[in-house]
Amino acid sequence: MKPQAFARAGLREIKQDQRHGASQLAHRCLQLVAEYARRLHDIEKSDGDALLEALVNFVAALQAARPSMAPIENLLREFIESMQNAGPAADVAESAEQRAQYLIEQSKRAIFQTAEKAGSLVGRGDTIFTHSFSSTIAAIFQNLHSKSVKAVITESRPGNEGELLARQLSALKIPTQYITEAQISLFIRRSDIVLVGADTLLADGSVVNKTGTHLLAMAAFDAGVPFYVCCESYKQSSRTQMNIALEEKSNSELQLKNMPFIEARNIYFDITPRKWISGYISEQGIRRGVSPIKNPEGP
Amino acid sequence: MKPQAFARAGLREIKQDQRHGASQLAHRCLQLVAEYARRLHDIEKSDGDALLEALVNFVAALQAARPSMAPIENLLREFIESMQNAGPAADVAESAEQRAQYLIEQSKRAIFQTAEKAGSLVGRGDTIFTHSFSSTIAAIFQNLHSKSVKAVITESRPGNEGELLARQLSALKIPTQYITEAQISLFIRRSDIVLVGADTLLADGSVVNKTGTHLLAMAAFDAGVPFYVCCESYKQSSRTQMNIALEEKSNSELQLKNMPFIEARNIYFDITPRKWISGYISEQGIRRGVSPIKNPEGP
Repeated sequence: MKPQAFARAGLREIKQDQRHGASQLAHRCLQLVAEYARRLHDIEKSDGDALLEALVNFVAALQAARPSMAPIENLLREFIESMQNAGPAADVAESAEQRAQYLIEQSKRAIFQTAEKAGSLVGRGDTIFTHSFSSTIAAIFQNLHSKSVKAVITESRPGNEGELLARQLSALKIPTQYITEAQISLFIRRSDIVLVGADTLLADGSVVNKTGTHLLAMAAFDAGVPFYVCCESYKQSSRTQMNIALEEKSNSELQLKNMPFIEARNIYFDITPRKWISGYISEQGIRRGVSPIKNPEGP
Repeated sequence: MKPQAFARAGLREIKQDQRHGASQLAHRCLQLVAEYARRLHDIEKSDGDALLEALVNFVAALQAARPSMAPIENLLREFIESMQNAGPAADVAESAEQRAQYLIEQSKRAIFQTAEKAGSLVGRGDTIFTHSFSSTIAAIFQNLHSKSVKAVITESRPGNEGELLARQLSALKIPTQYITEAQISLFIRRSDIVLVGADTLLADGSVVNKTGTHLLAMAAFDAGVPFYVCCESYKQSSRTQMNIALEEKSNSELQLKNMPFIEARNIYFDITPRKWISGYISEQGIRRGVSPIKNPEGP
C-alpha cells in the first residue's frame, strides 16, 4: 500500500472505531503516524522537511476525525512538537517511531498510575457503579479484585460496550449487575461509589464521556453517592463546552424501522457539568470536585 | 375452553403482556372477568353466591399479577364492590358484563378528558418530550397534531415501546426525534415540556412508571423544563413507596450472553419522587406539584 492510501485507510479506521476508548485510539494514532513516516521514507526517500510537513497534515486529519477525544489531540500535538524541536535528524522515520513509542509508554504509565490512585478510594466489599467501557476503569477492577468488590455496569446502548466490560469482570470473578441505562436511578442506591473514565476533561471542569454519563452523575448526586472521573492528564483539554464537538454516529445503530417524520438520533458523547463531580483522579493524584462526598475521609 | 382453563389463560396473558399500559390492561382484565362469569354461568349454572366467590378469586389473582399497576387494582375492586352491593341478580353473568362495560367506558372517558386537559398546557410549535408508551400520551398527541407540535421520544429499552409511539406519531405527521435513554440529558434542553403517563400514582405524590421516568424527571428539573404526569384518577393508589412492588421481567430481554458472575437485571418500573414533578393532570383538572414550572401562566 502506498503511503497516501495507508494514511487514508488509517484515518477511516480511526473515524469508524467504536470499540476503543480515547486513550487506546490515541495510541493507535501514534502508531499510524510512525508507520506513515516509515512508508514515506522508504518509498519516496523524502527529505526531512517534506516528510515532516506530510506528518503534520496527517496528524491534523487524525485530530479532526475524533473531535470529542482530547488524548488524540494532545498526544499527537506533543509528537509533532517534539519532531519540530528536534531539528533535522539523520533518519526522520526512525525518530518518529521512537517518539511515538515513548509517548505511548508515557500515556500507558499515566493510565496505570491513575488506576492505582482510584483504587485507594474503594473500600473492601464496595459496590462500584460505572458506565460504558473505559480502559482506565478496567485497570481499576483488575487491581481491586482481591478487595471483594462488586460492580453495577450499564449495557451502554447502542454500542453495547458494557458487554466488553462484563466479559472482563466475569474473568475477574467480580459479581456484577448488568443493567439498561434506564435503570440507573434504581441501582445507584445499591452502590457505594461511581467511577467513570473520560474522553476529554474540559477547561471548566466538565467532562466529555459516553452519552449517559451526565444522567448517572445526576442520579449519583441525588442518591448521595460520590462520583469520580478517572483519567490521565493527557485528557485535559483547553476547550470548553462552547467549542467542543460531540460526535454523532449513524442512527442505523438504533435499528428503528424507517418511518416518515421520525428521525433516530445517536449522539455518542455528553457533557457532565462540574457541579455533579465529586473528584478527579489522574496520575498526579486526587483533586476534589464540587459535588459533596459522602465519606470525605475515604472508605 | 372450560371456565378454569379460560381463567388460567387470561391470567397468563395479563402477566406476560408488555405491550399495553396499565389502563389498557385494566380494561382487558374487566373483559376477562365478565367473560369468565358468562362461561361459569353457561356451563356450571352456578348460583349467584358461588359465581360471585369465583369472580372474587379471579379478580384477586389478576390484581396480584401486575402489582405495579393501580388501575387494575382499582377498577377490579370497583367491579367487585358494585357486584356485591347489587344483591342477588336474576342473571349474574349479564350483570357482570354490564358493570365491566360501564367501568371501561368510565375509564376511557377519564383518559380522554385527561388528554384534553393536558393539551391545554402545550403551546403552538412546542416540543413535547415523553418516555415509553402511554395511551394517554398518545391521545394527547392525537388532539395536538394541528398545533404543529414536535416530539422527542425514547426507544424504551428493552421492550422498545417507543417504536409503537413512533409509528403513531409518524401517522400523525409529527416531527419526532427518537433517542436512546442515555441521550435524555442532551435532548431535554431542546424540549419545552415533559408529559408522561403513569402506571400508579402513590399516596405520597410519587409516580410509578416505566423505568427511566425518574432519570427524565431529574434531567427536566435540572434543565428547567416542566415535568407533568398525565393520568386519570383510577391510577391513584393508597400505597406508598414502602409497599409497592416494582415488577421485574425476564433478563433474557437484555440479550446478554450468559457469563459467570454477571447478572442482567430488568426492573420494568421506577418511582419518580414528588420533588421532581411540576404537576399532575387528571380528568379532574391540573394539580400543581412541587417542582418549579418555567411558565406558570401556561404556554
